[in-house]
Amino acid sequence: MGANLSIRIDLDSGERIGPGKIRLLELIETTGSISGAGRAMGMSYRRAWLLVDSLNRALGAPLVTTRQGGASGGGAQVTALGRELIARYRSLEAESAAATRRELGPLLPGSDL
Amino acid sequence: MGANLSIRIDLDSGERIGPGKIRLLELIETTGSISGAGRAMGMSYRRAWLLVDSLNRALGAPLVTTRQGGASGGGAQVTALGRELIARYRSLEAESAAATRRELGPLLPGSDL
Repeated sequence: MGANLSIRIDLDSGERIGPGKIRLLELIETTGSISGAGRAMGMSYRRAWLLVDSLNRALGAPLVTTRQGGASGGGAQVTALGRELIARYRSLEAESAAATRRELGPLLPGSDL
Repeated sequence: MGANLSIRIDLDSGERIGPGKIRLLELIETTGSISGAGRAMGMSYRRAWLLVDSLNRALGAPLVTTRQGGASGGGAQVTALGRELIARYRSLEAESAAATRRELGPLLPGSDL
């Protein structure tokens, strides 16, 4: 038995930061492509692009930059801010998971929290 | 500008613990009734009852007890375990909010995180 923690931040601007968008950013970094990252998560290029755009608006600065064409056929790159967001989100997630284990572990002895 | 944090725990059993169910428990404690608590959240008695039942299964013990009929017309009461779950969830939520402020605050200066 295990348990999985999901943390979502709803900003007053209406934008949201959550596990799906962070995972997408990580996959863009790995694959070097928005469509490749979307494919790995079973979503269309358009959907993936909209999620990246929403993150850019939430942070007020680009997290991903794209190149069109050229010898390498274009591609996408996560910016320094994007990498910082990934690291900080993963860090707050780890801290929250520790708090969840501490608080709920005693009430859910079989859950391996 | 503000921000709102939502934390959901998905147990391997398929049960979930999240902000909606915890709020429902709190409202059952306040109103003394599952239907009253459901109404306050805009949901049917049946939906509210199913959420309580799901929490009972997640914890493996009752979080709410009900009385039928009698002079007072029945009602529902949150058990000691239910009150402990509310307190512990609110506590882990506060700890996670602090971690979120610490980690994401510098990247979202206008958000009042």
